[in-house]
Amino acid sequence: MANRHTQTCAIAAALNILGDHWTLLLVREAFYGATRFGEFQRNTGIAKTLLSDRLFFLEKEGIFRKEDVGERGTRYAYYLTEKGRALETVMIALMQWSNEYVYGRGKEPVQLLDRSTGKPVPQLQLRNRKGEALGAMDVAFRAGPGASKATRRRLESIE
Amino acid sequence: MANRHTQTCAIAAALNILGDHWTLLLVREAFYGATRFGEFQRNTGIAKTLLSDRLFFLEKEGIFRKEDVGERGTRYAYYLTEKGRALETVMIALMQWSNEYVYGRGKEPVQLLDRSTGKPVPQLQLRNRKGEALGAMDVAFRAGPGASKATRRRLESIE
Repeated sequence: MANRHTQTCAIAAALNILGDHWTLLLVREAFYGATRFGEFQRNTGIAKTLLSDRLFFLEKEGIFRKEDVGERGTRYAYYLTEKGRALETVMIALMQWSNEYVYGRGKEPVQLLDRSTGKPVPQLQLRNRKGEALGAMDVAFRAGPGASKATRRRLESIE
Repeated sequence: MANRHTQTCAIAAALNILGDHWTLLLVREAFYGATRFGEFQRNTGIAKTLLSDRLFFLEKEGIFRKEDVGERGTRYAYYLTEKGRALETVMIALMQWSNEYVYGRGKEPVQLLDRSTGKPVPQLQLRNRKGEALGAMDVAFRAGPGASKATRRRLESIE
């Protein structure tokens, strides 16, 4: 986490936590059901010292909580917190983008299926409160209550 | 881009492109309307050599296309391709997560508003083909047509 972004920007702040390649892969593993150091290590191929470092960091940031399960050798289990589980949307957005634009249709390594139909889940789509799809032209980025002067100026310059 | 992940995993592949902190911030700037080297530089605070490197990389990966606009000094303009514009869902998922769990309600630096109502756009939500919301229990990650043996084994071990 060498270069922390200091802009007041939700994307920059998210990347300060998630920007490290490994972070989201560990979150992915947790979604797949991994809870133990050895599982995370085996399933991602991450070096042990790096894994140790990342799990500590993710616990500190409130993405994982560590539980002492009292077994010899593998004392701890790691579980996603509510904040961690909420990353599912980010993960799925990444997966759907990559399946479509990096791998391409028919070459998807992993798909998200609707259990009740067995069919792929449709792409995430912005919708208004009535559930109608919103396009890029229907939405606008605006300074929020926590905007810094610089962010406010930046966003006002857009239109 | 020191550590390229080699797993056949759509998330790993996406992070090979987007894993660098700066990459998504440049994409964010492009969504805000930046097209010129100087704008990207000024609005993110990125070092010029790093920016030059990242723009080259993003063009190579098909996220930006570079256009010679023939002006002295600032010859080139950078535009998002279709693949780049499709990252909007990833960006918005990150922004919504960060607004809720990093900044918290009432402290959002930037909000995405529905132009027709002026209200914040609801959180991205997985839905089935009928438009009904899907929870974590309604969906499953499954090996796709492009899965490697390792990915297939990994996913079959889940349940």
